[in-house]
Amino acid sequence: MKKNILIIPGDGIGQEVTTWGKKVLEKIGENYGHEFSFDEAIMGHTAIEATGNPLPDETLAKAKASDAILFGAIGHIKYDNDPSAKVRPEQGLLKIRKELGLYANLRPILLFDELLDASSLKPEILQGTDILFFRELTGDVYFGEKNRNEDNTFASDLMNYHRYEVERIARKAYDAARTRNKRLCSVDKANVLETSRLWREVVQEIAKEYPDVETEHMFIDNAAMQLVKNPKKFDVVLTANLFGDILTDEASQIAGSMGMLASASVGDGTGFFEPIHGSAHDIAGQNKANPLASILSAALMLDISFGLQEEAKAVTNAVAQTLKAGWRTGDIANANTEASKILGTQEMGEKVLEFI
Amino acid sequence: MKKNILIIPGDGIGQEVTTWGKKVLEKIGENYGHEFSFDEAIMGHTAIEATGNPLPDETLAKAKASDAILFGAIGHIKYDNDPSAKVRPEQGLLKIRKELGLYANLRPILLFDELLDASSLKPEILQGTDILFFRELTGDVYFGEKNRNEDNTFASDLMNYHRYEVERIARKAYDAARTRNKRLCSVDKANVLETSRLWREVVQEIAKEYPDVETEHMFIDNAAMQLVKNPKKFDVVLTANLFGDILTDEASQIAGSMGMLASASVGDGTGFFEPIHGSAHDIAGQNKANPLASILSAALMLDISFGLQEEAKAVTNAVAQTLKAGWRTGDIANANTEASKILGTQEMGEKVLEFI
Ligand SMILES: CC(C)[C@H](C(=O)O)[C@@H](O)C(=O)O
Ligand SMILES: CC(C)[C@H](C(=O)O)[C@@H](O)C(=O)O
Repeated sequence: MKKNILIIPGDGIGQEVTTWGKKVLEKIGENYGHEFSFDEAIMGHTAIEATGNPLPDETLAKAKASDAILFGAIGHIKYDNDPSAKVRPEQGLLKIRKELGLYANLRPILLFDELLDASSLKPEILQGTDILFFRELTGDVYFGEKNRNEDNTFASDLMNYHRYEVERIARKAYDAARTRNKRLCSVDKANVLETSRLWREVVQEIAKEYPDVETEHMFIDNAAMQLVKNPKKFDVVLTANLFGDILTDEASQIAGSMGMLASASVGDGTGFFEPIHGSAHDIAGQNKANPLASILSAALMLDISFGLQEEAKAVTNAVAQTLKAGWRTGDIANANTEASKILGTQEMGEKVLEFI
Repeated sequence: MKKNILIIPGDGIGQEVTTWGKKVLEKIGENYGHEFSFDEAIMGHTAIEATGNPLPDETLAKAKASDAILFGAIGHIKYDNDPSAKVRPEQGLLKIRKELGLYANLRPILLFDELLDASSLKPEILQGTDILFFRELTGDVYFGEKNRNEDNTFASDLMNYHRYEVERIARKAYDAARTRNKRLCSVDKANVLETSRLWREVVQEIAKEYPDVETEHMFIDNAAMQLVKNPKKFDVVLTANLFGDILTDEASQIAGSMGMLASASVGDGTGFFEPIHGSAHDIAGQNKANPLASILSAALMLDISFGLQEEAKAVTNAVAQTLKAGWRTGDIANANTEASKILGTQEMGEKVLEFI
């Protein structure tokens, strides 16, 4: 198989972690005889510094021309502290999602038995949890019209959904539920929001096409609670952009750390693969970041964009072996971890490569 | 002290639990020589059934004339399954919040040591947690203009904030932080939302008036994660209506159960006190609901609306004594609880009364 892969490291720890996602893809290419070629592009704060634009035209052109994209992270503390900045790193990420039509963001909450202890949740609550989130990614209050009045006394963002936007992501989620435990939970705030009421109506309609899948509707506040109380009760979770952003970060504690969670954004064309963690500038450049989320993002790419299930499995297994052998980065270590088993980004990446 | 208290039981288990909040207020009145008089009014599904209106004028008039309101819960599954219903129970609650100017919703996450085991979180993660949420309650996407186009292919809700709305709740939260551990965390999504950027700017300004309080700004996705990972790190949390709705329900797992959490809504006039749990129609009328959140709401009323700190403490202590004696409702029992210690709503309420 011949594929062009674009690497966009982005900001902060994005630089360090994508190095390892890429190395894993290279190794898989060698081992299985695929011709993966790589190109690189800039986005976010890094791109603003270089060009003034968080998503330069060149990056977008390369993205559209590639077969799949491995992305790192976005954001910089400078902008977080300056709410009035007009040009912001995150605009790059939001724009590429929109331009590539990446309307479905898949976030699997994959639990490695070895990490049961790394979570703040009790092991017996976690054991057996396996959730696949479908987060809508190109609509909602993220992309609606934004306003600020002249004297800065008022601001607004339009939360909105079109029927077709709900339909297409709902179908993807139901299709996935069919291949899993056949339960789908749609999360909204239909008791307050008109957008959610449309969402719920559309999901109720699509549900009829999937009589073999059990559908549940849950309010976001309740879902945020149930996810901590009893994560096992969920199989596929379908939700809007903002609610999905919140729930999946919360769910990262099920996997022990944000540093473990990969995501796949798919839609009309090229797929986009990224860790769900942020740029974490406080630890950037210190060889501390956990590279596993980027490595697992590479596995999702192999599986979803290239249909290479065996190769994807080889990567996931290598991660499991590494954890089984006791190796940890700081974020997934706990009080019982021996100091000699705690590795930096590079050393952890190398361990995974050895197991492939 | 002479006070007129309005009881609005509302829907579902609201009926059962407010009975006990009221009885506790009566007992406090007797013991401490206060003249508490009570009136009752309808709201929500109950009011729609009786009058067609989720907030009848009579209820609103009584509410405005009272010194404080004890509310139960709102909502009915019938409307949840029918997203196209035009008249909905929740409209009653939203309208009374707006009409009474209840812009600040205080949700203390009070941890009883006896319930450390009832949570899905590890005891060592929980121990020592003490969070006070300030949720803005009369703005945000809850009250912005709602639209649905004629052919039902599009829906929207306007998320919006005025500067003064952020200022007044921020000051309340900072004032409270001063009397506590002097740390305030403001939660928003300023990397995406214009509303959040205004929110952050205003909080940054107000922060200057409180140099003795340490301010942190956090994105909602990160906050939803940190709350599970390390709840102890929070003291006062200040946030918008929608984010507060989600975070406080999530935080209920810290207290072991939603059935333990009380809230106070205050602002321009009469204070409004309610459990954060919902109407739970699945267990309504079965003597199963936990009355402690309503009882603790009564304690908040004594403290915040009437300035009766000693009386409030007597109620909180009675709840602590009840738990210490081993009594539990089903929601806060665990595998180690003896069956004979698990009580119904009424029996639990009676236990608390005995301890006052
Ligand atoms: C960086 C930010 C814009 C982004 C989002 O909110 O979508 C991130 O939190 C994510 O979840 O991918
Ligand atoms: C019932 C509903 C409208 C309400 C809200 O979202 O505010 C409830 O969840 C709450 O938190 O008080």
